Amino acid sequence: MIDGEIDIISSERIENINISSQVGNLINSVGKGIIFLFVPHTTAGIFVNESADPAVSLDINKKLADLIPYGAGYRHMEGNSDSHIKSIIVGNQLFVFFEKGKLKLGTWGGIFFAEFDGPRRRKLYYQIQL
Amino acid sequence: MIDGEIDIISSERIENINISSQVGNLINSVGKGIIFLFVPHTTAGIFVNESADPAVSLDINKKLADLIPYGAGYRHMEGNSDSHIKSIIVGNQLFVFFEKGKLKLGTWGGIFFAEFDGPRRRKLYYQIQL
Amino acid sequence: MIDGEIDIISSERIENINISSQVGNLINSVGKGIIFLFVPHTTAGIFVNESADPAVSLDINKKLADLIPYGAGYRHMEGNSDSHIKSIIVGNQLFVFFEKGKLKLGTWGGIFFAEFDGPRRRKLYYQIQL
Repeated sequence: MIDGEIDIISSERIENINISSQVGNLINSVGKGIIFLFVPHTTAGIFVNESADPAVSLDINKKLADLIPYGAGYRHMEGNSDSHIKSIIVGNQLFVFFEKGKLKLGTWGGIFFAEFDGPRRRKLYYQIQL
Repeated sequence: MIDGEIDIISSERIENINISSQVGNLINSVGKGIIFLFVPHTTAGIFVNESADPAVSLDINKKLADLIPYGAGYRHMEGNSDSHIKSIIVGNQLFVFFEKGKLKLGTWGGIFFAEFDGPRRRKLYYQIQL
Repeated sequence: MIDGEIDIISSERIENINISSQVGNLINSVGKGIIFLFVPHTTAGIFVNESADPAVSLDINKKLADLIPYGAGYRHMEGNSDSHIKSIIVGNQLFVFFEKGKLKLGTWGGIFFAEFDGPRRRKLYYQIQL
């Protein structure tokens, strides 16, 4: 079993960062299996979705902001409950299959780190099972 | 490790297709372990929920349509941003335990392929770990 | 592979129960790997989020109740479609990495069993891969 961490730096409060290449590089030299990804933060998430048109990412962020607005009368004193709730709904973990050194994401799929309370230094844990 | 693909054909734009039997058949001959399922599409999802009463599926679709309506001022020019957002919120992957040739889903549980932008030919990747 | 069940008793209709210690105890004696957790109920979920401030949990429940209210004209005759929909959106499964007998959850992370239709006796299946 191979494991480690990926470093991610976000530059906005809300930002979807395409990390497909970073993740893909981890499995370049190995065969067939599953890579498991885990975000050890409670105000960020991870998802797979379209990477071709950046408008999809903007639509996602807009919709999440409409449904779960920032600073809308939450009890948590830090003021970032919207970020925690988005993290739970989007999810903080993911697995992706790979084969012959390539992630099996589908034609339009990319892996996105979802920053919901940046800008910050973040990390992502991974484990690879062959 | 056993792996492969399942073919799925949807017949509506929005449709939850019960694929429990298709998935169950994959593990009929093997012992105890985990089956990992991955949807390589960015406008579809997968979830486990009640399979006894079809009204549950209708309630899910109605609620998702209320929260994330079709064609409601999205920037993505293809017009199916609702499908992408639903895919992220519902999720595009799942694992299920099995034992003695049976999925351990609980009394009422079924596995559903969630079509959010059909009708289409779709596929599902799987890997089985014993 | 090690597997088994955790028993959980909820005392409210809607309740997030911190099960980090219960899960942590399962991996106390083993090395490095992944614990997979699966909720075999269709009206409950599981998530990782902040365990330090209980207000975060209240904010989550309030927001989910606002978006998916109880008894709001659903077709499912049992009247608990809100619980089914929350289960799908939050998710009913989770994996967590561990190392040297400790869950790798991050500084503020806890594992929560999300009861959406209690009070009830519930269970959680697990499998541990080293």
